[in-house]
Amino acid sequence: MFSQTVEYALRAVVQLAYKSPEPCTTEQIAEATMVPKAYLSKVLQVLSRAGIVNSQRGIRGGMSLNRSPEELTILDVVNSVDPIQRIHQCPLGLKSHGSLLCPLHRRMDETLASVEATFANTTLAEILNEPSSSTPLCERPSQNPFINLITPQPRKD
Amino acid sequence: MFSQTVEYALRAVVQLAYKSPEPCTTEQIAEATMVPKAYLSKVLQVLSRAGIVNSQRGIRGGMSLNRSPEELTILDVVNSVDPIQRIHQCPLGLKSHGSLLCPLHRRMDETLASVEATFANTTLAEILNEPSSSTPLCERPSQNPFINLITPQPRKD
Repeated sequence: MFSQTVEYALRAVVQLAYKSPEPCTTEQIAEATMVPKAYLSKVLQVLSRAGIVNSQRGIRGGMSLNRSPEELTILDVVNSVDPIQRIHQCPLGLKSHGSLLCPLHRRMDETLASVEATFANTTLAEILNEPSSSTPLCERPSQNPFINLITPQPRKD
Repeated sequence: MFSQTVEYALRAVVQLAYKSPEPCTTEQIAEATMVPKAYLSKVLQVLSRAGIVNSQRGIRGGMSLNRSPEELTILDVVNSVDPIQRIHQCPLGLKSHGSLLCPLHRRMDETLASVEATFANTTLAEILNEPSSSTPLCERPSQNPFINLITPQPRKD
């Protein structure tokens, strides 16, 4: 249900959140996120147009987040690249239904609303700081599965 | 997030559930569901291969449901045509993550699990019999928006 573009956009902003406020080049993001560079460039363009990331030219330039990880939600990112399409009107165009959805489409819209709410309530900062044995985008060097539960730290490589 | 194929498959099975156990021709389903006939034929083929619908040849032949609407869930239909892809392994292939998803992918998988659960708990019979002012796939002839709340009846045209 989540497109490849959504997956890649989320990886890119997680990487930029780790580095925030330092900029990253597209090459650096591509390497860290394992996303093909050409595909990533297009995703970053869309994120830039949506105001999620900022592109800075120059020797120390690159992409950076336009907002702090505390202010950026998963929904912001998802809706920038592949918006969740809620069902506001009868998809068959039945006049008597209009915005009064039938039980089928209401049930479908309720699941979309549930996904929307979960994503709206999750910031990038929460993803980065959540205690977990797996850190987004990076291999865990230690063999102790609880190392990050004891000292959860965002990656700063 | 729901593909056109999912939308069309659900419309088709709702129509077949109304008519159950009588068979319908592809033309009849296409007209009732407002789905292009060529697209619908392909969707019905997939539903047939998945054992959701049954194709009967002959003068009184057509498509019919292979199970009663009480036994068929939305998830059965969705997973037959465009399965919900849960995240069981790290999408980046990070060895240290494996099936221990990081907070990003765990959050994404939890939303998929929630959609899956909602759809698994909803049968076609519930969709058809739920009191509502809008009946799936058909215009409401009465101007009284509460007519179906008083006398909920599955369509039998």
